[in-house]
Amino acid sequence: MAKSFKHLRDKMPLDSQAAASNKAKALMAEMPLSELRLARKLSQAQLAEKMHVNQAAISKMERRTDMYVSTLREAIKAMGGELEIQAKFPDGSVSITQFHDIRGNSGS
Amino acid sequence: MAKSFKHLRDKMPLDSQAAASNKAKALMAEMPLSELRLARKLSQAQLAEKMHVNQAAISKMERRTDMYVSTLREAIKAMGGELEIQAKFPDGSVSITQFHDIRGNSGS
Repeated sequence: MAKSFKHLRDKMPLDSQAAASNKAKALMAEMPLSELRLARKLSQAQLAEKMHVNQAAISKMERRTDMYVSTLREAIKAMGGELEIQAKFPDGSVSITQFHDIRGNSGS
Repeated sequence: MAKSFKHLRDKMPLDSQAAASNKAKALMAEMPLSELRLARKLSQAQLAEKMHVNQAAISKMERRTDMYVSTLREAIKAMGGELEIQAKFPDGSVSITQFHDIRGNSGS
């Protein structure tokens, strides 16, 4: 039975495996909200409907270089995703949880 | 030469290796900004000085459940870190780049 791949992986040092994993993470797609919307196959009008705003508001949002975390969370949620905010340090990453469930709390 | 660990790893299916990697990622620390500040060994007064605001502003910021992305970025930068905003979908994650270099652009 062919086992050349297993053999190769077996010979790969652990730190190289970690480096390969980090490289994969570094290659994660990076894009602004407008490109993300297109990647999710949504028009501005469709996203506007999901966010209960008009198309002009989406157009304006996509040109912003700053916005409230809650607005960003709503936009990503409307595209079917989940917002995660990370603080990256040389010695590790931390997920910031301060802004979770904003709408969930304010509605009740 | 002992090679029991390598032998075990060699026998580990690729999907189990991926699951272990995902579990490690899921175990990333999660905390609000106040805890992150303490983890970075900074007092409110020290962070205030780094952000060129007063201590009351830090206290207020740490009690907020919503804020501008730029404020969050400045706070994390002042703690020596870098803000990363991710949109997580069942089929992968995307890093949102729309809010980068806000201060860098506005200053010049």
